[in-house]
Amino acid sequence: MSRKKMKAPFFVVNPKSFLFGKPLMDLAHYADQLAKEHRIDILFTAPLTELAIIAQECPNLIVTSQHMDNIVPGDSMGRVLPESLKQIGVQAVVVNHADKPIPFSILASTIQRAKEVGLLTIACADSISEGQAMALLGPDIVLAEPTELIGRDQMSDRAYVTSTIEKIKEINPAILVEQGAGIRSEKDVAELLQLGADGVGVTSGIVKAENPKEMMKRMIQAVALHQKERK
Amino acid sequence: MSRKKMKAPFFVVNPKSFLFGKPLMDLAHYADQLAKEHRIDILFTAPLTELAIIAQECPNLIVTSQHMDNIVPGDSMGRVLPESLKQIGVQAVVVNHADKPIPFSILASTIQRAKEVGLLTIACADSISEGQAMALLGPDIVLAEPTELIGRDQMSDRAYVTSTIEKIKEINPAILVEQGAGIRSEKDVAELLQLGADGVGVTSGIVKAENPKEMMKRMIQAVALHQKERK
Amino acid sequence: MSRKKMKAPFFVVNPKSFLFGKPLMDLAHYADQLAKEHRIDILFTAPLTELAIIAQECPNLIVTSQHMDNIVPGDSMGRVLPESLKQIGVQAVVVNHADKPIPFSILASTIQRAKEVGLLTIACADSISEGQAMALLGPDIVLAEPTELIGRDQMSDRAYVTSTIEKIKEINPAILVEQGAGIRSEKDVAELLQLGADGVGVTSGIVKAENPKEMMKRMIQAVALHQKERK
Amino acid sequence: MSRKKMKAPFFVVNPKSFLFGKPLMDLAHYADQLAKEHRIDILFTAPLTELAIIAQECPNLIVTSQHMDNIVPGDSMGRVLPESLKQIGVQAVVVNHADKPIPFSILASTIQRAKEVGLLTIACADSISEGQAMALLGPDIVLAEPTELIGRDQMSDRAYVTSTIEKIKEINPAILVEQGAGIRSEKDVAELLQLGADGVGVTSGIVKAENPKEMMKRMIQAVALHQKERK
Repeated sequence: MSRKKMKAPFFVVNPKSFLFGKPLMDLAHYADQLAKEHRIDILFTAPLTELAIIAQECPNLIVTSQHMDNIVPGDSMGRVLPESLKQIGVQAVVVNHADKPIPFSILASTIQRAKEVGLLTIACADSISEGQAMALLGPDIVLAEPTELIGRDQMSDRAYVTSTIEKIKEINPAILVEQGAGIRSEKDVAELLQLGADGVGVTSGIVKAENPKEMMKRMIQAVALHQKERK
Repeated sequence: MSRKKMKAPFFVVNPKSFLFGKPLMDLAHYADQLAKEHRIDILFTAPLTELAIIAQECPNLIVTSQHMDNIVPGDSMGRVLPESLKQIGVQAVVVNHADKPIPFSILASTIQRAKEVGLLTIACADSISEGQAMALLGPDIVLAEPTELIGRDQMSDRAYVTSTIEKIKEINPAILVEQGAGIRSEKDVAELLQLGADGVGVTSGIVKAENPKEMMKRMIQAVALHQKERK
Repeated sequence: MSRKKMKAPFFVVNPKSFLFGKPLMDLAHYADQLAKEHRIDILFTAPLTELAIIAQECPNLIVTSQHMDNIVPGDSMGRVLPESLKQIGVQAVVVNHADKPIPFSILASTIQRAKEVGLLTIACADSISEGQAMALLGPDIVLAEPTELIGRDQMSDRAYVTSTIEKIKEINPAILVEQGAGIRSEKDVAELLQLGADGVGVTSGIVKAENPKEMMKRMIQAVALHQKERK
Repeated sequence: MSRKKMKAPFFVVNPKSFLFGKPLMDLAHYADQLAKEHRIDILFTAPLTELAIIAQECPNLIVTSQHMDNIVPGDSMGRVLPESLKQIGVQAVVVNHADKPIPFSILASTIQRAKEVGLLTIACADSISEGQAMALLGPDIVLAEPTELIGRDQMSDRAYVTSTIEKIKEINPAILVEQGAGIRSEKDVAELLQLGADGVGVTSGIVKAENPKEMMKRMIQAVALHQKERK
């Protein structure tokens, strides 16, 4: 099935399970408006049970599931069915996040299955060699953040960032490299893009900001500015 | 938070992951209409990602999640957040299905958490002694079907059915006992209710029937008839 | 197959994975000598890979595995085969420890399988209602320690201890109740036995003591004294 | 710590959990004798609980664990402690077998940890791209057998075998490539070595042979012959 075409630079709003219900919808609606205004690819994740409503109400977002099970329609209970994701309007899926690890032996087939169903994949890895290994399995985006920095105030250092990007593109230049971990302001976003990241993903930097919507706006504006300058 | 009050006899439509999208919505709408018409408690399960839409469109169903993770709002990725289930209109949750087993050590707290959030629990066990053990953990409904019969054409035998019910109520008479496994017609439904089951749950008997909606109707009518006769 | 007959009071030395190689063997040899001297049932656990040697060298200990998989001889890789445990001289097995949780749905069959193979089972639960539920599944010993106290300096309070014992024996008076968590001296051991515990299990209290062998001796002497006084 | 140096060609006897006790020891003793006689590297795996005794009695075998947990000495229960493996004389460990999958996110650190403790690693992958990805994580040996062929009578086809070897060595020429799956005779062993495999691993071909010891001997002789011819 047809899949969304991703382009750099992109931005990922990943509220994990910090938000649900109205506060989540408010953030999603605002992101939707910013995506339209700045013509930027914004991936927006949410708890599994909230994806359908966001997809209904936010046509400018690339609504993104935080997990997918490699199952087919049948007698599975309580798992994340790829076909259902596609059906409700989800366009991308995060696989192998540190909080939802996937056995190596089913990673490759999960990524393959997402493709067949028409979903983009963002595959997480937490070191450079793992990022390279992941790249061999053919996802669209590799997010290579050191697990120990997730949720912390400290950003990955410049050397780590540039060498992640270089090493992953060495394996497959078509793969987009996302940077995350420790991003606290629009300056961090701009810096990572200048270092060569194709996209930037943020959780704590937004949901724990004094004013999450304002912070998200500034970060997205930084992506938009980078996009303009690249042209 | 306030929880739905269950009453016997009830019926559970559990399409597992056999259905999604339009065929699932068609079945849900029809079940919704039958629930209203016959004033019967119908629990209706669906893939996690379809629950929100069913809850929006089917006010007469007790929309039921097929799993729940014992997490609180926070940095979890790709898990089933109890608060989100409640928020989108889900009223009940299946825990410990054979296809989504929960470690014994978190079962008790998962059932407790569902209560706090305002969700009913249907807890699965696959033998009489497990059914009794489960009853001690305080769920609303215990479904005690032998795993080896799930999806088969053979129903649990009468002795198993009556002694399951008796032994579970011995532990806690307030717990409702659901019977499932191998139910293929409205006669099976009627028989189980006559044997003392508080509710009956069906998957294959409906989704693999020649005409699923017609079969579901006949089964629900059998429940309605039983309800009338009991009065 | 024939199983060891347990009698109260018993003592459990559970070095978890704190010890291996020579320090573990030293402790085991000393426990073996104390078991012989005081004619007391001492269960001694060890990392999976050390069990065979302890069983060879310590005939007076009830050598105890820290886990068992519910598998039969066949194509399993890297799992704990019940038949092999029995073969190498292991006589008991801990199931469902907080660090090695077992899904509810395979607990009953795991306990049953241990019996068939000729192994005693010590089943862990972490609250009174879980202890009761566990008792329904038929293990030989139930260890009911609140998970949050494991490894801490604080012992379960008296009310918890006595009501655990009472409630579990209500379900099945033949089950022996072990108390653990927060035991730091021979006085704690004596107190728990006086409160009605059939046995006492210790990890940190021994391995983190200034002199582990000396502390173990004093604790075992406390068990021996209690045994004498009961006669 | 010092690790065994592997050289091609090698042979892996992997009785999985088919054997334990005396029949396992008989096979191990015979393999030990053949290893000495033919001066060949023979890796011999066994259930976790049998490793210590094999290591004691079979000095010419590279005794191999079927799993290892990435833990340090401490409060783990029922897991496979790397330090204990080394201590009892184990020299290698299989990681990520299809029957004991490891999450991608801990594979890299597990392989690294084995190195630090002084153990060789045989890492399993079940396709060419997974084999390449695995090679990036730095194991000593990659076993790349398609999961669907494990335990079957059919061998991987020649094209699969040669391209696995080529593609994995492309990533890292120092990695040894093992072939397994469907090997039923000494001819199969010889053929795989001629196709370029560094080693061959067998389970069913031996344990289900009419005369396992005789079959193992003939397979090991095939390896020895190949070794001679290469010189």
